[in-house]
Amino acid sequence: MDQTTPAHIEHAHMLFPEGMQLECGFLLAPVRVAYRTYGTLSAARDNAIVVCHALTGDQYLAETHPLTGKPGWWSRMVGPGLPIDTDRFFVICMNVLGGCMGSTGPRDPRPDMPGEPWGTDFPPITIRDMVRAQKLVVDALGISRLFAVVGGSMGGMQVLEWAATFPGMVFAAMPIATSPFHSAQNIAFNEVSRQAIFADPEWHGGRYWEQGAIPARGLAVARMMAHITYLSEEALTRKFGRRVRRDPYNQAGAMSLFGEIFEVESYLRHQGSSFVRRFDANSYLTITRAMDYFDLGADHDGDPSRPFHGTRTRFCIVSFTSDWLFPTSQARLLARALNRAAANVSFVEIDSDKGHDAFLLDEPDFDRTVRGFLSGAAEHARIG
Amino acid sequence: MDQTTPAHIEHAHMLFPEGMQLECGFLLAPVRVAYRTYGTLSAARDNAIVVCHALTGDQYLAETHPLTGKPGWWSRMVGPGLPIDTDRFFVICMNVLGGCMGSTGPRDPRPDMPGEPWGTDFPPITIRDMVRAQKLVVDALGISRLFAVVGGSMGGMQVLEWAATFPGMVFAAMPIATSPFHSAQNIAFNEVSRQAIFADPEWHGGRYWEQGAIPARGLAVARMMAHITYLSEEALTRKFGRRVRRDPYNQAGAMSLFGEIFEVESYLRHQGSSFVRRFDANSYLTITRAMDYFDLGADHDGDPSRPFHGTRTRFCIVSFTSDWLFPTSQARLLARALNRAAANVSFVEIDSDKGHDAFLLDEPDFDRTVRGFLSGAAEHARIG
Repeated sequence: MDQTTPAHIEHAHMLFPEGMQLECGFLLAPVRVAYRTYGTLSAARDNAIVVCHALTGDQYLAETHPLTGKPGWWSRMVGPGLPIDTDRFFVICMNVLGGCMGSTGPRDPRPDMPGEPWGTDFPPITIRDMVRAQKLVVDALGISRLFAVVGGSMGGMQVLEWAATFPGMVFAAMPIATSPFHSAQNIAFNEVSRQAIFADPEWHGGRYWEQGAIPARGLAVARMMAHITYLSEEALTRKFGRRVRRDPYNQAGAMSLFGEIFEVESYLRHQGSSFVRRFDANSYLTITRAMDYFDLGADHDGDPSRPFHGTRTRFCIVSFTSDWLFPTSQARLLARALNRAAANVSFVEIDSDKGHDAFLLDEPDFDRTVRGFLSGAAEHARIG
Repeated sequence: MDQTTPAHIEHAHMLFPEGMQLECGFLLAPVRVAYRTYGTLSAARDNAIVVCHALTGDQYLAETHPLTGKPGWWSRMVGPGLPIDTDRFFVICMNVLGGCMGSTGPRDPRPDMPGEPWGTDFPPITIRDMVRAQKLVVDALGISRLFAVVGGSMGGMQVLEWAATFPGMVFAAMPIATSPFHSAQNIAFNEVSRQAIFADPEWHGGRYWEQGAIPARGLAVARMMAHITYLSEEALTRKFGRRVRRDPYNQAGAMSLFGEIFEVESYLRHQGSSFVRRFDANSYLTITRAMDYFDLGADHDGDPSRPFHGTRTRFCIVSFTSDWLFPTSQARLLARALNRAAANVSFVEIDSDKGHDAFLLDEPDFDRTVRGFLSGAAEHARIG
């Protein structure tokens, strides 16, 4: 396996040579945004849906992933006849700014030092920066108003930022399994991820590319931990319980009783090692930081309702009962904020034992919710 | 700081040259058990309470810790006039087998290779092995029956194992914030901890002592992650929220927006770095494994009630509402198992927002529960 492969794939993208000024004040130029579209833009250009991906997702939403060879991350949701129906809607999905699947990110060369990648000198990115980069593509496609913006987890943060920053452009918004701000506990988990990466000797202060290395073990540990937070106790118990299997590596020497490991351990190790083949450590650092900064109330004396005053966007907030990373209590704070702003809001809590990842998995109630909300909104928008 | 300091402290202990046969079949000899006692053993030898410590606890229960200089981990609970009243009871606390505070563990020399520490070749230990090592000390003290065994988290597992393995010896048992088996989610968290240690280059396959090194960064990451699981979302929000402070290190270069970090990050880093000064990585591996193996039903077709059939021990199970590592649902499984065994059981769920660590913190309702249960049991036992 060539561990540096991800850098060498060509991704469909738009290039914006003039770039954009980031929230931190830095002028990032050029800016490249990699994207994929599904379905057909109507003549009236009124049927576009932006789907925003989560921390480790990307633009390969509903097609075979060019790196992993697996189906796109929302193939079960987006396609002809599916809840996000590409026979009806034009779906755009873009790799986030700071990512590693073709959009400008830490692996790109610095404009001021040709041939030298940004690495950890890449400027800090916010969720709003991600959304403003996405708007460059939407504008370039000649779309002045999005029918909807949909996304889960960090994708949900982008949905909220779209509606807050460009209120006239978003007819309907569906923030899923998300929160009006990143909680202390979630910042804490992200920080442990980052420390795991920093602790890897192959991290080389973020300049691992110079050594032809990647901090694979640290990144794998980060992913393993994060993966636990995406599931639920019930899901782990149902899938693995306390079942054991032989340990193929016996990493800890004799410390393993009878040379066995628990199946859940084997599963996590696989999650960790497959992740490092497709994700860049500096992007992981940049994007987790962006999540940590996210706080809708930050510029408004802590009031997350303020960005939405006067909004005409119709919202459907979705949470899942067993999601403890973005629990229903946080979705409820969001619903209250939107209610205070007198927005048009519905709030659906889906009964699921699959944890935070439920929005990516087979949950018929959730599918019906997505389909129903978009159909209803399309009727009001008189499209399709 | 001399990072190898912990090895060189003298701890009060008993030595058992004939050792003991471990559950894995290995004859471990000699066996050394480090212990502390508080209060006075009565002439009838009927007032002894064994307090069992958790994963990273030790025998310094109610006195200044010789390494950290801090008060013992249960100083607020154990002492004259306190809920575990040393004016009345004789309290014994022992470092667990496999630990690093004086009991036989991976840092000890191998009997077959003089001068060579066990490291990862230390045999796997179970919770029952820990309890059987403790019984050697109790026997040596001439105590044929314990008035009570009390402990939280992994200490609670030991309480259950004491009552299951030596039913005639335990008059009262108080398993706190614990479970009848280690859950898949908790095994998963432990596994990430272990992988973080394995990923540290200073781990040297467990033979770090040969390099005069310790896997400090990996162990710190393990501790940081575990520490999150000991708290609760509410506690983290209350203590830190989204407050920021200047980043003294700026570890990730420019990636930190305005050079600030969140206070919760700074707190976790401190937790990680102070932990590595007092704990041994191989002990961490050994003890987390022991927790993972714990399953009261394992030898009984998965029925955790079986070990308690006919028991005369009186149990008081305690859980905390915000504990998501050992949630009330698991305590309830334990209560049901003990009920099926027709044991004398009470079950108290304490309302607390402090998470798993609540049993170590200021929770007046919990203090009253401990005091009340022990007083009531002492009356029945006609002691004190």
